[in-house]
Amino acid sequence: MIKARVTVTLKNGVLDPQGKAIEGALGALGFEGVDQIRQGKVFDLTLDGVDKTRAEADIKAMCEKLLANTVIENYTISLD
Amino acid sequence: MIKARVTVTLKNGVLDPQGKAIEGALGALGFEGVDQIRQGKVFDLTLDGVDKTRAEADIKAMCEKLLANTVIENYTISLD
Repeated sequence: MIKARVTVTLKNGVLDPQGKAIEGALGALGFEGVDQIRQGKVFDLTLDGVDKTRAEADIKAMCEKLLANTVIENYTISLD
Repeated sequence: MIKARVTVTLKNGVLDPQGKAIEGALGALGFEGVDQIRQGKVFDLTLDGVDKTRAEADIKAMCEKLLANTVIENYTISLD
């Protein structure tokens, strides 16, 4: 059993209206000093098997094919 | 300027239909050995100021009030 976390974030320069909305909502709630918020996604994966090298390669392929839109998003993989 | 990352994940036992859909999609793409996927959210915050203790307290309040639904979600805060 291998556990891994994939974090997908928008690339710099890509507009993030969701993040802007959260900034606005925090301001409306009285939180000051928030300069910027950008929202991303996180995927917690549990994989069968014990080969970490193989698992990392598999997860990279999953990111390229499904989990991330590599035109506008970056991803990082961390294995436990 | 303080940078922080908030990670919001579903609590154990809370159904995650989005994660299930991703599991199904990965299976359809030919990826085997995926036991479970759960999706969460990540927020990258940039705050004005230099007081890390104060910033952490502020971010905790933001999580409780807006960023996380603490009935069904856990959150972790990590400051750079």
